[in-house]
Amino acid sequence: MPTPDTAQPTANIGVVGLAVMGSNLARNLASREGNTVAVFNRTYAKTEELVTDHPEAQFVPASSYAEFAASLQKPRTAIIMVKAGRATDAVIDELMNVFEPGDIIVDGGNALFTDTIRREKAVGERGFNFVGMGVSGGEEGALLGPSLMPGGPDQSWVTLGPILKSIAAVAEGEPCVTHIGHDGAGHFVKMVHNGIEYADMQLIAEAYDLIRRGTGKSPAEIADIFAEWNRGELESYLIEITAEVLRQTDAATGGPLVDVIVDEAGAKGTGAWTVQTALDLGVPVSGIAEATFARSLSSHREQRDVSGGLPGPADAFTVTDVDAFVEQVRLALYASKIVAYSQGFDEIRAGAAQYGWNIDLGAVSKIWRAGCIIRAQFLNRIADAYDAEPELPVLLTAPYFVDALGRAQDAWRQIVATAAGAGIPAPAFSSSLAYYDGLRAERLPAALIQGQRDFFGAHTYRRTDKAGTFHTLWSDDRSEVEAEDTH
Amino acid sequence: MPTPDTAQPTANIGVVGLAVMGSNLARNLASREGNTVAVFNRTYAKTEELVTDHPEAQFVPASSYAEFAASLQKPRTAIIMVKAGRATDAVIDELMNVFEPGDIIVDGGNALFTDTIRREKAVGERGFNFVGMGVSGGEEGALLGPSLMPGGPDQSWVTLGPILKSIAAVAEGEPCVTHIGHDGAGHFVKMVHNGIEYADMQLIAEAYDLIRRGTGKSPAEIADIFAEWNRGELESYLIEITAEVLRQTDAATGGPLVDVIVDEAGAKGTGAWTVQTALDLGVPVSGIAEATFARSLSSHREQRDVSGGLPGPADAFTVTDVDAFVEQVRLALYASKIVAYSQGFDEIRAGAAQYGWNIDLGAVSKIWRAGCIIRAQFLNRIADAYDAEPELPVLLTAPYFVDALGRAQDAWRQIVATAAGAGIPAPAFSSSLAYYDGLRAERLPAALIQGQRDFFGAHTYRRTDKAGTFHTLWSDDRSEVEAEDTH
Repeated sequence: MPTPDTAQPTANIGVVGLAVMGSNLARNLASREGNTVAVFNRTYAKTEELVTDHPEAQFVPASSYAEFAASLQKPRTAIIMVKAGRATDAVIDELMNVFEPGDIIVDGGNALFTDTIRREKAVGERGFNFVGMGVSGGEEGALLGPSLMPGGPDQSWVTLGPILKSIAAVAEGEPCVTHIGHDGAGHFVKMVHNGIEYADMQLIAEAYDLIRRGTGKSPAEIADIFAEWNRGELESYLIEITAEVLRQTDAATGGPLVDVIVDEAGAKGTGAWTVQTALDLGVPVSGIAEATFARSLSSHREQRDVSGGLPGPADAFTVTDVDAFVEQVRLALYASKIVAYSQGFDEIRAGAAQYGWNIDLGAVSKIWRAGCIIRAQFLNRIADAYDAEPELPVLLTAPYFVDALGRAQDAWRQIVATAAGAGIPAPAFSSSLAYYDGLRAERLPAALIQGQRDFFGAHTYRRTDKAGTFHTLWSDDRSEVEAEDTH
Repeated sequence: MPTPDTAQPTANIGVVGLAVMGSNLARNLASREGNTVAVFNRTYAKTEELVTDHPEAQFVPASSYAEFAASLQKPRTAIIMVKAGRATDAVIDELMNVFEPGDIIVDGGNALFTDTIRREKAVGERGFNFVGMGVSGGEEGALLGPSLMPGGPDQSWVTLGPILKSIAAVAEGEPCVTHIGHDGAGHFVKMVHNGIEYADMQLIAEAYDLIRRGTGKSPAEIADIFAEWNRGELESYLIEITAEVLRQTDAATGGPLVDVIVDEAGAKGTGAWTVQTALDLGVPVSGIAEATFARSLSSHREQRDVSGGLPGPADAFTVTDVDAFVEQVRLALYASKIVAYSQGFDEIRAGAAQYGWNIDLGAVSKIWRAGCIIRAQFLNRIADAYDAEPELPVLLTAPYFVDALGRAQDAWRQIVATAAGAGIPAPAFSSSLAYYDGLRAERLPAALIQGQRDFFGAHTYRRTDKAGTFHTLWSDDRSEVEAEDTH
């Protein structure tokens, strides 16, 4: 066991929780000029293992919380990387026992933003700075440069900012980190990032499925198509790795790996959180919802097993002009992707309004350009849109996107129609298009819904030609009365 | 102020909260043979008003909780009809102060089922019987015969059952009430009822919009179509009132009422609850989600105002064979409706499994046949399906529905394709079709999603050809290793 010189704290940053994400983040921190990293884990063996395996990091190991605190310069700054939930609360309590007011406690786990709001309040009341931070990029990102989304109080950013900038991914010379906003803002934005990731992946999956079933191309041939797409406006990490996955041959069977993988998609819950929160905020995020539901549908094997005999189209689906079809799919993918991101940014805007966060949407799109799963060239276009008009009410109305949607919409419509006719599920493509057509509709049949609601529940309606709230006396003489909107 | 004879309680049932729903339910109770109804409201003036306005009811009014309790025969049974939330908790506390163990407290408000679970536990621990009860049918239903969905402990049903049967709507000779299950089961089923109602209304709205924009028929002409549909397999209250709403002329303008109603649909939150709960349970309820999102989209006027210029199809949309088109829309509506109900019953099945409720799905469909908003002939077909196979894994695979979907699917595909091409939003039609095609797909591109997840997050995958969990060493030599599923 080490005997640290408690009289002279040497570390400027500490990490608690040394599973793979925590270890990698600690190694990343240690690799940057100027950082000395204290490390602590509940089981000391894990700490020793990390220190032994990585002598180059010159970690300052601690075998107790007291020792950990003693090794940190003030204001002490510790990043917690443990399982979200009770484990996080337990570590926070331990740190508050050994830290002093003014010290900074960062939760880098996947906390739900409402938990983060609660924690900042409770921890802040005891004089500490609490920062909930979204960390994206998985294990590799943690080690080499993640996209970081810290919330928390402003004063924490003075100490934390330079440290986080030193380890974040870099996009076009800029570190992929910004102070998102107070309390839960960082975890909120990370949640929406993951929701968008769900939509992005589902859209890619639908594109693949349509090309495969429509053209009979092999996964390796479709890999070439994705690699080609990755040189254009769709350029992104997810498109890139899709090509890699599709190209992979399974050693055991000699066939494509994708064909031996069980077609039931797992989920860790952040997609569902994104949709649940959007429902609370009244923001339609149909693309993310369809992507989340598509995964749960795929996992209901007991239902799929009895549904194979449901009637489908009589005719087999074959595409005659393959190149034109592939290009249509590409355009449908791009247009649907614009919708998914637009919906996601709507949710961030609504969340900021609801919780009083001052979030720079352009800055959010910029810190996603590297280090995270949805990193893409495309995010520069979003930054441009918000730079030009920070209060843009809906992202897809920015001129660049209007132009892109204009170029794509015929193909998009064709692909949704083709999928419907061919019996190929394209829930995210078709939902995105329906959202787009809903947004641009001059009149929506929501007027009929209001009429129905007034009929059966006296929920009242407003009129297009005068102010006020009205009710028709449906079960009386059907005259109209002005009403209090009490329903 | 009345001076009740506290030595001789005369009422067999009491109602607390005399706003319109409570008053109507009390009047309904009083109108049935054998019931004597005690009534209490926080403001006594409201109690007096009800008693004065309805001498025929022979209410037993109470001016305090003590008096209310004294007027009730044991086991005392009171139905609370106040605003869901804190008001409910406050009334429960008051009742427990004056009631005795074994008495029955019924919450007939729109509580979230998790609140009901919490309340049954807390109230039950003090020896009372707590029943969370869904009441459907609005003000008219409360007065003339609602559909009732009580949860709560078995012993409460002995006393409560006969009273509720006396006031419930009647369908084909059977009262529309059944003991749904323990604690939150009743409010859960009521929540899903409302979610299905959202989907049903959105599907009708899409059908109307397509016919209107495709054929140029007037709302009154479309009312005739709905009236005609109401004589066939679509027969239901919502179809019936749609015809009424569409036929309504606005006195002020002389035009159709539906054209002067502001096209922004309101919502009271139960649609969102249904979707949020489904996400927790991993049940895809995409039809309900799209309906909920369509309402919120319609209400975002600030976004719609800037989106009118988004590019749409170049060609105007006109239908040549009007009758054939209308029939296609009808079939698409019916097929989509089957999907929405199937998804809703899936959610009930999943909720029952999660919370340990023994819910008879056939009985649920039967108590919705009258008294509630989604009442329809169609529900008999659902009851038949569950009678034939109580453990049916997915409702739409019942023979009757397979047949109906087989007859409808060509038209359904055509309508979704037409809407996409014409630029008319049909989110619920297209989402339902995508769900249907997803369910019956032999292989889903979820396999690609699992490949992507393994690539960027080492989330592992399963193989179709052998048991176990696997990971490809993507950033190494790309060999496959057997893995613990730790992600």
